[in-house]
Amino acid sequence: MTSTDGSGEVVVYDLDPDCTLDDVEEGNYYHATVNGVVDYGVFVDVSDTVSGLAHESNYDGSYEVGDDLVVELTEIRENGDLSFVPTELGDYETVEVGHDYDISDAGELSEAVGDTVHLEGEVVQIKQTGGPTIFHVSDETGVIPCAAFEEAGVRAYPGVEIDDVVRVTGQVEERDNALQVEADSLDVLTDDDAEEVRERLAAAFEERAEPHEVEPLVEWPALEQMVPDLKEVAQQLRRTVLESRPIRVRHHADGDGMCASIPVQYALERFIEETHQDPEAKRHLFKRLPSKAPFYEMEDVTRDLNFALEDQARHGQKLPLLLMLDNGSTAEDVPAYKNLAHYDIPIVVVDHHHPDPEAVEPYVDAHVNPYLYDEDYRITTGMMCVELARMIWPDITEELRHVPAVAGLCDRSKADTMTDYVDLAESEGYEESLLRDIGEALDYEAHWLKYDAGRNLINDVLNVGTDDESRHRELVEFLADTAESEVEDQLDAAMPHVEHERLDSDANLYRIDVENHAHRFTYPAPGKTTGEIHDRKVQQTGEPVITIGYGPDFAVLRSDGVRLDIPEMVSELNEEVVGGGVSGGGHLVVGSIKFVPGMREEVLDALVEKMADAEIDEELQSTTVGHERTDD
Amino acid sequence: MTSTDGSGEVVVYDLDPDCTLDDVEEGNYYHATVNGVVDYGVFVDVSDTVSGLAHESNYDGSYEVGDDLVVELTEIRENGDLSFVPTELGDYETVEVGHDYDISDAGELSEAVGDTVHLEGEVVQIKQTGGPTIFHVSDETGVIPCAAFEEAGVRAYPGVEIDDVVRVTGQVEERDNALQVEADSLDVLTDDDAEEVRERLAAAFEERAEPHEVEPLVEWPALEQMVPDLKEVAQQLRRTVLESRPIRVRHHADGDGMCASIPVQYALERFIEETHQDPEAKRHLFKRLPSKAPFYEMEDVTRDLNFALEDQARHGQKLPLLLMLDNGSTAEDVPAYKNLAHYDIPIVVVDHHHPDPEAVEPYVDAHVNPYLYDEDYRITTGMMCVELARMIWPDITEELRHVPAVAGLCDRSKADTMTDYVDLAESEGYEESLLRDIGEALDYEAHWLKYDAGRNLINDVLNVGTDDESRHRELVEFLADTAESEVEDQLDAAMPHVEHERLDSDANLYRIDVENHAHRFTYPAPGKTTGEIHDRKVQQTGEPVITIGYGPDFAVLRSDGVRLDIPEMVSELNEEVVGGGVSGGGHLVVGSIKFVPGMREEVLDALVEKMADAEIDEELQSTTVGHERTDD
Amino acid sequence: MTSTDGSGEVVVYDLDPDCTLDDVEEGNYYHATVNGVVDYGVFVDVSDTVSGLAHESNYDGSYEVGDDLVVELTEIRENGDLSFVPTELGDYETVEVGHDYDISDAGELSEAVGDTVHLEGEVVQIKQTGGPTIFHVSDETGVIPCAAFEEAGVRAYPGVEIDDVVRVTGQVEERDNALQVEADSLDVLTDDDAEEVRERLAAAFEERAEPHEVEPLVEWPALEQMVPDLKEVAQQLRRTVLESRPIRVRHHADGDGMCASIPVQYALERFIEETHQDPEAKRHLFKRLPSKAPFYEMEDVTRDLNFALEDQARHGQKLPLLLMLDNGSTAEDVPAYKNLAHYDIPIVVVDHHHPDPEAVEPYVDAHVNPYLYDEDYRITTGMMCVELARMIWPDITEELRHVPAVAGLCDRSKADTMTDYVDLAESEGYEESLLRDIGEALDYEAHWLKYDAGRNLINDVLNVGTDDESRHRELVEFLADTAESEVEDQLDAAMPHVEHERLDSDANLYRIDVENHAHRFTYPAPGKTTGEIHDRKVQQTGEPVITIGYGPDFAVLRSDGVRLDIPEMVSELNEEVVGGGVSGGGHLVVGSIKFVPGMREEVLDALVEKMADAEIDEELQSTTVGHERTDD
Repeated sequence: MTSTDGSGEVVVYDLDPDCTLDDVEEGNYYHATVNGVVDYGVFVDVSDTVSGLAHESNYDGSYEVGDDLVVELTEIRENGDLSFVPTELGDYETVEVGHDYDISDAGELSEAVGDTVHLEGEVVQIKQTGGPTIFHVSDETGVIPCAAFEEAGVRAYPGVEIDDVVRVTGQVEERDNALQVEADSLDVLTDDDAEEVRERLAAAFEERAEPHEVEPLVEWPALEQMVPDLKEVAQQLRRTVLESRPIRVRHHADGDGMCASIPVQYALERFIEETHQDPEAKRHLFKRLPSKAPFYEMEDVTRDLNFALEDQARHGQKLPLLLMLDNGSTAEDVPAYKNLAHYDIPIVVVDHHHPDPEAVEPYVDAHVNPYLYDEDYRITTGMMCVELARMIWPDITEELRHVPAVAGLCDRSKADTMTDYVDLAESEGYEESLLRDIGEALDYEAHWLKYDAGRNLINDVLNVGTDDESRHRELVEFLADTAESEVEDQLDAAMPHVEHERLDSDANLYRIDVENHAHRFTYPAPGKTTGEIHDRKVQQTGEPVITIGYGPDFAVLRSDGVRLDIPEMVSELNEEVVGGGVSGGGHLVVGSIKFVPGMREEVLDALVEKMADAEIDEELQSTTVGHERTDD
Repeated sequence: MTSTDGSGEVVVYDLDPDCTLDDVEEGNYYHATVNGVVDYGVFVDVSDTVSGLAHESNYDGSYEVGDDLVVELTEIRENGDLSFVPTELGDYETVEVGHDYDISDAGELSEAVGDTVHLEGEVVQIKQTGGPTIFHVSDETGVIPCAAFEEAGVRAYPGVEIDDVVRVTGQVEERDNALQVEADSLDVLTDDDAEEVRERLAAAFEERAEPHEVEPLVEWPALEQMVPDLKEVAQQLRRTVLESRPIRVRHHADGDGMCASIPVQYALERFIEETHQDPEAKRHLFKRLPSKAPFYEMEDVTRDLNFALEDQARHGQKLPLLLMLDNGSTAEDVPAYKNLAHYDIPIVVVDHHHPDPEAVEPYVDAHVNPYLYDEDYRITTGMMCVELARMIWPDITEELRHVPAVAGLCDRSKADTMTDYVDLAESEGYEESLLRDIGEALDYEAHWLKYDAGRNLINDVLNVGTDDESRHRELVEFLADTAESEVEDQLDAAMPHVEHERLDSDANLYRIDVENHAHRFTYPAPGKTTGEIHDRKVQQTGEPVITIGYGPDFAVLRSDGVRLDIPEMVSELNEEVVGGGVSGGGHLVVGSIKFVPGMREEVLDALVEKMADAEIDEELQSTTVGHERTDD
Repeated sequence: MTSTDGSGEVVVYDLDPDCTLDDVEEGNYYHATVNGVVDYGVFVDVSDTVSGLAHESNYDGSYEVGDDLVVELTEIRENGDLSFVPTELGDYETVEVGHDYDISDAGELSEAVGDTVHLEGEVVQIKQTGGPTIFHVSDETGVIPCAAFEEAGVRAYPGVEIDDVVRVTGQVEERDNALQVEADSLDVLTDDDAEEVRERLAAAFEERAEPHEVEPLVEWPALEQMVPDLKEVAQQLRRTVLESRPIRVRHHADGDGMCASIPVQYALERFIEETHQDPEAKRHLFKRLPSKAPFYEMEDVTRDLNFALEDQARHGQKLPLLLMLDNGSTAEDVPAYKNLAHYDIPIVVVDHHHPDPEAVEPYVDAHVNPYLYDEDYRITTGMMCVELARMIWPDITEELRHVPAVAGLCDRSKADTMTDYVDLAESEGYEESLLRDIGEALDYEAHWLKYDAGRNLINDVLNVGTDDESRHRELVEFLADTAESEVEDQLDAAMPHVEHERLDSDANLYRIDVENHAHRFTYPAPGKTTGEIHDRKVQQTGEPVITIGYGPDFAVLRSDGVRLDIPEMVSELNEEVVGGGVSGGGHLVVGSIKFVPGMREEVLDALVEKMADAEIDEELQSTTVGHERTDD
């Protein structure tokens, strides 16, 4: 049944190379090209995959490979073979036929093994192997590797880049028991086509990235006002996973930093497992590292950037998103952020240290910090991140109920809601002494793990994502006991050398040379040693107390009942003590300063002078949300 | 030939799902289930793998998929097709038929490629891939990976855990030229079935784990009495390999520690090669690391545990056995051992440092130490471990004959048997000066390797497991010469600053500030520098000598001819010097102490006072079996 | 058509086992062996791959497997089957037939998938897998893996070693989309056969290794005279790649060191890509590491050797060639070189530090240094290595035009030609201030990267091998600004503490305690801090200046206008200051010395005394081609 157009003119179809058997019909005319000549006829192509024989009995003359002609499709046999007859038509109209794509879902190919499919999606990774180039294509439903072969070890489709939107045609196959598409063609979509796919994907990602609605674990208006911002972070993290962009977490190497990062890691790992087939994906897409400094150091950012660029160059991965937890809100983080600004590396910060939003926010995509809501450190990062983790993956709620209490106790949160958190934890079987022990154990393990994340060990200590309750308890008890006994040893050496002085303001000033009168390179490090001494003196005296723990080129400061504006002190000292090289940071009751060793006496004297003038404010209590390094 | 039971009643067999063609016979009746309906009849299953057609000419009525019925097996055709006839029986007895398993041997499957086999064994590793889950199943004869597929990247048989005893049915296949079983079913055995297999495996492992009987290299009753205990360690190590549990060795980073650990590594690698097909197994199952401290530090155990848990989580490996060599016998090791006690990590110690068995033994599975037999450090760990290695793999004896002599010279063993060991080494072509040079070279390389095992380099130096005799000699000569010249440089700087004092006891006391009058971060480190100075002074004076090499927060102690009870001194100093933070360890003639830098003068003065009272005992000679760190 | 020899005697051919169908002809007689007995005849082999049936109708009697006989080849059927007839001949002559090998090219096998091929080449890597042993065989055209299977995980052909010349027969197959030969046989060639192949390969390699002729970027006779030596290095490096021997680069961790090593890395990576199919080859065959010390330290060589031996043991790789860049010319490198001398590790040095050729050259294969041509440090290593890189891979010239200028500015080259280099860079769009900033940025990144090569980061800074011009500019600006501001902070602390003294020679001596009056473990490190102070003083005074930056156990020396023979000073000080442990190195205007901390005052006093006598030479200007470590 030959087609004619409206005017009765014969129609010859010009098929798009992508057209398949579904696009042809017996009796129609097609533009064809000879691709082979045999004794008994010629083979002709009407598209990349539709070919057939024109038997020599059906035409006169001869053809050569490459000749164009018009053919009639006379028969489609049961076995799929096609018979064509070359035809000389007078007038005809050519009609272009695009393939009516039936676009498959990347996440639903397991039933399609052996079939030729069409996919549309975004290229999220390009990995060159010794054989084909593997393009990982992501659509609304999942990510599928598409293997394209140019020449062994040679980049196929060199024009295709990460983030391009492509249409892939190929056969689904199993390789090492995982699915892969053996690509016949992989075309970059442009203009409207690309835009349409991009919008479709964006909409779908936005929907899949949508965080879950969860009721906060406790009623707390102070925290609730932050929920919308936390939800945006949750959404960004989920979207980042869907886009196959790795997430790199840097967090404070202490108890609250662990309570913040472990739940987020746990939630994202679950989400990655759901959205990525490869069981290694959760290792490629998520990496967590503790930071020893109270800010993002140049050494750390150099290392992170170096690894990220190496992963990009070697495995064709996207550059990561940086998630700063319990760290990252201060001006001291800015040089590192500036370093990343030259690369496509979004930065998200969730922190409860006293922030400097003006300095930080030009460089970050999101910044959640209680001080931005007129709250303070009492809402610890662990508390926020438990909610964040639940928005990402609510099923883990059960395992996280005790975590905010641990976080709060670690950072000595004075929030009234602490009672609720502790009650909640107790209702899960965690008595308060156990919660404190978990905090001590986290600090202790963080110390010895140094630059290692220690995922499984910390999970056992925090009892998140593990299932051996009794081991958790025994381990925590052992670690907390050992930590306590090592603190005792340290204080046995240090306490006899603590010097006392009563300031004009009547506050007590205690000074200790932690370099000379404490052990180095052991637990507790100078910052924690100073804190422990301070706490004992506060308890002993019941009066306002300032403690200075100093080493050759640093001093750690703690105050209870005296208002120290440490950033201002630092800036004054830097001016007044010429050649002192004073720098540092902190806030009202905690801080640390650095100086050059040769000027220590001058700097400390000037510092003490300033402290003598500092205003008594008995409301003020020291926290451990400090500003010192967590190592030696 | 229809079966009847004793009473003449017809028997209908109810086959276990595992039953195969071997379990059926023409003429018998079977319980069956319809699994397919076609125009010409129904297909019925009588077990998971035994099915056939009931032709519609042989029955009336109709069946649906899932219907249960009784069939007679009327024909087994040559091509394996079965014909059944549905039957309505009146009375019959049902007899359950288990499959008569012909259990294959995991280690003998190379002739069975393509066959369906049954295996019984213990699960020793579970590795999730992007495709199937790989269960490594170990039986009496070997370990075979069994791939079970649930869904790509999804854990198959989530109920199956490491150490479960399982029965696997599947096809043997070659994949990347290694054998694997594509599992159709993998069932956990329970109760008696499990017990039986477990006992069979245990008996077989016990037999295969049996160490070899070897004649000690020299006649030495002191050592011979330890042979039974060493044999038990050998057996446990071999069994550990058979159970696919990794072995992690931590050893003293000095000459004797190398002479102890290298032979054991060599022997175990050979045994792993014999028992595990995978050439990477010897890297997965054996890891050796030197310890810089004279005991198992919290930092080291944290790192080891972290890696072990990561290997478990990521590769599904068992947790390791910890083998402490030339280290591990003292109370200072106990905190680290306690940390491991919460995990399934057995600990075995072979050491010759003065032990504290009461402290250590609650935490270790085996503890071999000459002091436990009223012998002492003169039986070095290297001497014991050469015998241990030979029990594990006797074929390497040839290559080990010189090692005990090196070990003894390294640790200055005063054993009479040293002559025999040196003679033995000389008969293998190692003159005594070469043996000494090997010891120096080992120390020197251990210093620069820092935390690295340096397997191949150390093998070349010790000439074990290598085959280039002349390179060995040249390398040793170069390293020993360089080491000697660096010791000279160090002593050139230090000797002019050694202070002398004659104690009341008439002993000579030498003191050297190794921080200020020696180079740091170079070879030799403070401990060895002190030892070298001490040795020269002993030789110069021919009198009782005590040497103290001190730094800002430590002192290294050596004595010849004076009995120092260092542990007691430490405990007294800790009490007497308030705020001194004194700790440490050692024995009669060697030891080290730590203190806080600010109290160094007080501590050293008090220490010297105690030394003045120490009893002269000219028999006592210093060794290098010291208690100091081997780094700076 | 039966063959006869000249005398008419019948010829029976005795085929080499390698012979194929191409070597046989119908009608000829062959020596054969029975390899199978069936009802209807016997199967006989006439070579490893040529077999056929002798039908029982064609002979009397019976044969057993293993029987030798003579057969006539009566028919070669279309399908390749052969028919033989056993024959009893009287007299005959045996003629041995070697297979007329048609040797394939390892690099040209992509069209031969499925075919049996013969290859001849050198074994360059032997890797044992859990299945077959993989021999990487290299011929004139490329490298191909040949898989030989003995037993799973067992070394096939244990007699074959790296560097053996072999003949391989096997089928070409695709495995994971890469080509591999499944070896049927792999024979080591000996004597003449080996020699012939070896010569062929050597000639081919020599030709392929031939470096490109390139016109130096600027006209400069001083540099041009070094071109022949640089060409030899280029040739050796290319040959090393062709021989699949890894190249390990150690370079000075500063700007010039980066400008030297990055172009060479870039060029070699391109060459490796061209010559090795495996995309990972450029990572296996090339590794670059910065050295913090100004010479090749024992710790570094120990680590390098350890890794090299591990790669050899584990992956069957060759030992590497060591390429020292901007480092390696001095006597202080010799101990490390001596350590390597016991292994097959050639050493090549390209450096512009003042060399000690007599000490170094016995240990190195090539040594290129401007001082050997009566030139000096002004020809920086970066300048030489840009030419070297272009000889290896000229296509990258475009991207390297600015690099010599950066190198020269980094090391303050006073060469007249610097103007030409800067002009050249400016013509590429790099204004001089940008070139200086790149240098600062390289130094800054080198500092924070520590022991990491930071390939991609450094490429972005240097703008070599990247394509994001604007990122390069922004990044450099950021890094240079940050570096400058950190230098300012450091000098703010240090400058007030610089002590001045006028020497008898009227030169100014400045001293600064960089331990006590500068920050440690930050940027800039003591060496650079001292240099910055020195530069300011030179500028301020316009007079001869010596600057000493000292720490507890080291001093960094800089001079402008005073001739210091630092090596001689060191050797005098070492003699004069007893127990000072003085060592060090350098040249006329830069150097560093080490001593024991307790003798610092004595050493510095003696040093200053010597400086007081030093001759004024206003021509002499300090460079940064110094002798201090680039870290703390």
